[in-house]
Amino acid sequence: MARETRIPNATIERIALYVKPLERLLEEGTEVVSSRKLALLCRVRSAQVRKDLSYFGEFGVRGVGYDVRDLLREIRRILGTDQEWRLAIVGLGNMGQALAQNPAFAKRCHRFVAAFDSDPDKIGTTVLPGLIIQPASEIVQVCRAEGVHIGLIAVPSSQAQGVADRLFEAGVKAILNFSPFQVRRPDCCHVENVDFTVSLDNLAYFLGRKGKG
Amino acid sequence: MARETRIPNATIERIALYVKPLERLLEEGTEVVSSRKLALLCRVRSAQVRKDLSYFGEFGVRGVGYDVRDLLREIRRILGTDQEWRLAIVGLGNMGQALAQNPAFAKRCHRFVAAFDSDPDKIGTTVLPGLIIQPASEIVQVCRAEGVHIGLIAVPSSQAQGVADRLFEAGVKAILNFSPFQVRRPDCCHVENVDFTVSLDNLAYFLGRKGKG
Repeated sequence: MARETRIPNATIERIALYVKPLERLLEEGTEVVSSRKLALLCRVRSAQVRKDLSYFGEFGVRGVGYDVRDLLREIRRILGTDQEWRLAIVGLGNMGQALAQNPAFAKRCHRFVAAFDSDPDKIGTTVLPGLIIQPASEIVQVCRAEGVHIGLIAVPSSQAQGVADRLFEAGVKAILNFSPFQVRRPDCCHVENVDFTVSLDNLAYFLGRKGKG
Repeated sequence: MARETRIPNATIERIALYVKPLERLLEEGTEVVSSRKLALLCRVRSAQVRKDLSYFGEFGVRGVGYDVRDLLREIRRILGTDQEWRLAIVGLGNMGQALAQNPAFAKRCHRFVAAFDSDPDKIGTTVLPGLIIQPASEIVQVCRAEGVHIGLIAVPSSQAQGVADRLFEAGVKAILNFSPFQVRRPDCCHVENVDFTVSLDNLAYFLGRKGKG
């Protein structure tokens, strides 16, 4: 598919936003969606939707809309979310437990293959069927052996960089960081920070304006 | 402060991003920061930092930089994050417990005044000192009595809209939604969705490109 290499980065970033509304439409039994409806659900302009989707294949039927299932499959293929990525999670406190049990990973065929904590009371216990907590001291060895692709960090800020460094050492190239600490990374790797405090500050600002207005 | 009303929305959205790096500088004992250093930490251009900060007061000392403490105080005041907002959390599973114990709220002077769950085994137990889980059926009554400003939703998708509707009914104007379900809201209210699946998809895309490249 020589065509794929020409998709602009801005489009790639945007099409990830189409996934959830399309999943919801499919769950509701909707088979075809218009660019206008899809734009409304994704909060972008219709013209933008049509332009973004024009880059990868012909799913549009003029005057009718897009085939929801085909479109979702193609977007997932381009995003790489139709592949099974192997996950490791470090830190099985409340946040780590909530993540391990989150259905979003299984929905994407991603699979937890390793879990780590440094608390002796947790080591040896089961997080999910077949997923047993191992000592954090074995991150490098186990992640290498398991061929982990994505590491999830759910430890306190003070431990985040140390954990990230061990994951990178094990050859893990992608990290989803739930600690508020922004970890440093080698150039070959990618880190996504999930930080709700910006959203919290937006709400406070909204309330502050409202109160004064 | 007539001046404040002229701050563009784009600037307001951006200054929330300055908070965390400034907090870190302060914790490290840094008293003055240059626009160049701040730009680097926030990943924006220096010219942008200078423009954004020019809107609210004179904290810049030419050739030296900004007073970190004064700047942070002023940003928090403008964002409304220096005020005490009263929080209620609904859903005390692993995610809810992790949130209730997150130091980010106390750091902002926000305070949990109510916690709800529908599980009889949880009702009556203590989440934080003085914070006892109450039945979800009492959300409207309790939130009204407690004057709750911000509601946190940490329940499964299927229950999210019902919980949001009860919070709105109780006069709660701002919701931080940790369920993957995008709740509908009245025009007078604001909802921020915290959804890590977009970050996860970005990582998968990064790995997919890497594998093929």
